Amino acid sequence: MSYRRTIKIVCGFAGGSAVLVVAAAAAEYQGCFGHTRAARWSLFNVLRAAQPAGNRTVESTGNAWDFNWDKRDLSALLTNGKKEVVSEDPSSEQDNGKPKATRNILLIRHSQYNLSGSGDHERILTPLGREQAEFTGQRLAALGLKYDIMVHSTMARATETANIISKYLPGVELVSCDLLREGAPIEPVPPVTHWKPDAVQYHEDGARIEAAFRRYIHRADPKQKEDSYEIIVCHANVIRYFVCRALQFPPEGWLRIGLNNGSITWLTVRPSGRVALRTLGDSGFMPPDKLTRT
Amino acid sequence: MSYRRTIKIVCGFAGGSAVLVVAAAAAEYQGCFGHTRAARWSLFNVLRAAQPAGNRTVESTGNAWDFNWDKRDLSALLTNGKKEVVSEDPSSEQDNGKPKATRNILLIRHSQYNLSGSGDHERILTPLGREQAEFTGQRLAALGLKYDIMVHSTMARATETANIISKYLPGVELVSCDLLREGAPIEPVPPVTHWKPDAVQYHEDGARIEAAFRRYIHRADPKQKEDSYEIIVCHANVIRYFVCRALQFPPEGWLRIGLNNGSITWLTVRPSGRVALRTLGDSGFMPPDKLTRT
Repeated sequence: MSYRRTIKIVCGFAGGSAVLVVAAAAAEYQGCFGHTRAARWSLFNVLRAAQPAGNRTVESTGNAWDFNWDKRDLSALLTNGKKEVVSEDPSSEQDNGKPKATRNILLIRHSQYNLSGSGDHERILTPLGREQAEFTGQRLAALGLKYDIMVHSTMARATETANIISKYLPGVELVSCDLLREGAPIEPVPPVTHWKPDAVQYHEDGARIEAAFRRYIHRADPKQKEDSYEIIVCHANVIRYFVCRALQFPPEGWLRIGLNNGSITWLTVRPSGRVALRTLGDSGFMPPDKLTRT
Repeated sequence: MSYRRTIKIVCGFAGGSAVLVVAAAAAEYQGCFGHTRAARWSLFNVLRAAQPAGNRTVESTGNAWDFNWDKRDLSALLTNGKKEVVSEDPSSEQDNGKPKATRNILLIRHSQYNLSGSGDHERILTPLGREQAEFTGQRLAALGLKYDIMVHSTMARATETANIISKYLPGVELVSCDLLREGAPIEPVPPVTHWKPDAVQYHEDGARIEAAFRRYIHRADPKQKEDSYEIIVCHANVIRYFVCRALQFPPEGWLRIGLNNGSITWLTVRPSGRVALRTLGDSGFMPPDKLTRT
């Protein structure tokens, strides 16, 4: 039974409250109810789990990647009845509003800071942290990429890290952003005993960090002519959440990832909306005795 | 409605073939049918997707990580009616067969090789590939870890990479393994047009690479006294599949990850079965002009 066919039957025959929960998850594919990527992905997982591996087809697995995850997929717009706005000439269609450039987003975790500071303004970099930021700045410069901008969280440790890196990247515009501050993005699975934020923290930080994701992680604008390289200096939780979200992995899994201070995590977003993680927590440019994860 | 309660209703009221598919996925939690981690994870995702974020509880999200993913979770054995074999004295129970050590597994992608070779024996490292392996060996040595063993795929490029690395790690036993050879682990989602293995390749490689995963990626044996550090020199597809499987992310997502030649990917498996990805594709120890991904 194909994935598409199975969903139709769930929508059509379902009865009882619990079954409706499942049907609601399926409904996005059919357009019955709301619109969530997670719902489509999740139902696919249920159907996949119930199939022997040998019976899986490209058709069914292909449905699990949402190409319109950033709501910038022009072809998704076209299939919603807007095809008339686009020329029918295939040669001209290629230039008709579709993204052409690749966005490279280099996520930098701030370097080591004074954990015992009583407030953010006291949580400044340690001497080792300042040294780590120098290594990161040197590596980013050595990579020789044409950086367009460096955005950093407004927290002291991220600002200080960005300022040190900035010395190695003269001419790259430096911008601060409150959305990128550290926080509790979503309850981690599995939970941990040593870190238990209050519900209100997830409530506020979760929406704010998701807003940061939507602002910074997306495919290129159709007007963008050349590939871009952007640096974002922020925090471990924010970066780990971004990576899970961008790869369409369960965001609750973010705490299964660790990141060294000053490390580089590199996401690439293609014009098609494909996302690739090129490296995560790269800190090989630091001598081993300078590595920390605090 | 709690997660546990929802599943009971699905099991109890479901009717119709498609609903049975979903019920089958739910059944593992209830012990009705077979035993798959994917089923439990997947049903959780459906239920989660249908809940507003604010209503999620730690209890429900905690169900999505399978602590017995490697079938070495003693507490899972205990709850299956085998508690009588363990002393009731809590102080002695701590030493009673439970793993105590952490396994560190450093996955190395082979370095650059001659892509135009007609068979594996001709697909040997390029001069740059040999240089990359020197960098990797130097970095692994500089990390100063007490490596227990280095296992490598029997393919020429992995064997050659391991032999070069081995020069920097005198005394570390070198072992080869056929299970680690490159292949097609599972159909990638989203699919790509430039790489379309035949179904038979997935059929054979998929089971073999999964077998490699089960052999090498698991928590420590209870007899292991000290933390271990093992090096596995193998291939991009194998490493990416291992990472997705170990983190309990959808294995179909493996092609969303890229890995530089000679890069280090570091997985940690705690005695509890928790897994952490400490770095992925770390190649910062190579000068930028030596980086390749072929």
